[in-house]
Amino acid sequence: MRLAPPTDADWMAAAIALSRRGRPSAAPNPNVGCLIVKGCKVVARGWTQAGGRPHAEAVALAAAGDAARGATAYVSLEPCAHASDRGPACSDLLVAAGVARIVIAAQDPDPRTDGAGIARLRAAGIEVVEGVLPAEARAAMAPWWTRRRAGRPFVTLKLATSLDGCIAMADGASRWITGDRARAHGHLERAMHQAILVGRGTFAADAPRLDVRLPGLEARSPHKLLLTSGTAPEGWTAVASPDAIDGVDSVLVEGGASAAAAFLAADRVDRLLLYRAPILIGGGKAALGDIGLTDLAAAHGRWRLADSRMLGSDRLDVYERVRRD
Amino acid sequence: MRLAPPTDADWMAAAIALSRRGRPSAAPNPNVGCLIVKGCKVVARGWTQAGGRPHAEAVALAAAGDAARGATAYVSLEPCAHASDRGPACSDLLVAAGVARIVIAAQDPDPRTDGAGIARLRAAGIEVVEGVLPAEARAAMAPWWTRRRAGRPFVTLKLATSLDGCIAMADGASRWITGDRARAHGHLERAMHQAILVGRGTFAADAPRLDVRLPGLEARSPHKLLLTSGTAPEGWTAVASPDAIDGVDSVLVEGGASAAAAFLAADRVDRLLLYRAPILIGGGKAALGDIGLTDLAAAHGRWRLADSRMLGSDRLDVYERVRRD
Repeated sequence: MRLAPPTDADWMAAAIALSRRGRPSAAPNPNVGCLIVKGCKVVARGWTQAGGRPHAEAVALAAAGDAARGATAYVSLEPCAHASDRGPACSDLLVAAGVARIVIAAQDPDPRTDGAGIARLRAAGIEVVEGVLPAEARAAMAPWWTRRRAGRPFVTLKLATSLDGCIAMADGASRWITGDRARAHGHLERAMHQAILVGRGTFAADAPRLDVRLPGLEARSPHKLLLTSGTAPEGWTAVASPDAIDGVDSVLVEGGASAAAAFLAADRVDRLLLYRAPILIGGGKAALGDIGLTDLAAAHGRWRLADSRMLGSDRLDVYERVRRD
Repeated sequence: MRLAPPTDADWMAAAIALSRRGRPSAAPNPNVGCLIVKGCKVVARGWTQAGGRPHAEAVALAAAGDAARGATAYVSLEPCAHASDRGPACSDLLVAAGVARIVIAAQDPDPRTDGAGIARLRAAGIEVVEGVLPAEARAAMAPWWTRRRAGRPFVTLKLATSLDGCIAMADGASRWITGDRARAHGHLERAMHQAILVGRGTFAADAPRLDVRLPGLEARSPHKLLLTSGTAPEGWTAVASPDAIDGVDSVLVEGGASAAAAFLAADRVDRLLLYRAPILIGGGKAALGDIGLTDLAAAHGRWRLADSRMLGSDRLDVYERVRRD
């Protein structure tokens, strides 16, 4: 049996998967993935490195060496047109390497590039294909994209509840609702975010460490934000409102019910992580405070199921905010 | 490619599937399924008819006619040994029909049979195999089995909530949380129960009809029970406590939070139907009142996920109470 050769979309999906490796370490730059393919063989791979340099294309071209000549490069974001003291422009590197064809998922909205990279490649005689899996590429770099386009961070809200939607017993006891695997997954999510936020009640009750307790990922522990109108203790940054977060692309809101409700009321939640344990609590603490809903009909059509999996006997459902923009 | 012939367990699984068709109409008799197989071919099928007679074996033997001679009969419950004015004993019918081999899932705990059916078949020279998928057979007749063994009905609790576990907005509005398909499934569940119960709050707020509004199933609308220390209106039966239900094998508890909590606190819930809509309410009405939980650890290990499916954009999770009895 002969398999059909991969399509441009197949290769791009692989480049987009690579791009996720730079999340969140590539910040403040976009996390981009690059695959260099020649004669149906992958000759090199690259993704944006920690701190944002080298770029994905530079990594892949360095690995490919002479094999890049005449090859096709798949890049999840338009190659940059601007040189900086941290490195040359990727469009120049691709021309110099003799790449014959470049497939791009999404155009770079950065005004220093924004079509100029594509123009430079075409001017050098390279065949450029645009718009292959752009939505998937943008989703893979959603934190960078959201901040650049909307001027605010991409916010994930995490809730760990019983089947009846409680985040704790009436006396506040919440250890443990979910099991080991769900909690380990929660730590992995911490490592994927630049900042974690809790409200004052959760801070006072739990004095949470909010670090990443997974072997090898301890250094990925994010900034700690406290939602408060007052000041924050050492090691924490005070945030007065969901609209007042500055300097990070991604925030994980870990609790409690009031902080979660504040972000939802401000429509500042882009992604929900719902961990649900197969237990009933009854009369416990609700997951959310008032979010300003005045009409049930208005609650519908806002959330789309993006992923669902079992973590031991707990279920994780991931929902994404449906936005038309 | 030749398929391997079906095993006894394969045929029995089909007989158990048939047995479900008699639920709940077979009451007060057990809902039994029967398959008659000859030379790897199904020659007849039967299940307990409405009101409990004819029995599954009688139906299948009547359909099989002479083809039953030398055949194997798969029966989900031991054939009865007692004749009544409503029909002869099934063990006698099977002997008279010349069936060569009988495979039985579970022994009948009814003292009028309880092994006597098997003894009579063996005495007539029929090969009898016992204990093929007994747990599955008992699960398919759980209402009858629970009432016979525990002296109480099999109770299903239905909850329809938002992602944050609310059954209504703070002002009581609950139309609609779940969508058309989930609500239609709820009506199908009504048709599968002998009785439906609500608490006084739900009765006062909604004056629910609790009938089955599915074409062709209107006549299957169950008895209506009201959990109250007082009296019930016409058409309803008053039930003073979860332990005071008499005369039915199965009850569907439809709400509200207090009634649900009363049944859970009494450990009288055998099955949970959780319909969950992809919406957030925030600060709404909780699904459950106090269920007497004093320790989170005690909440674990009680519920096992038995089924999970999407109904439109809503999810249905079915949990079963883990009991060691």
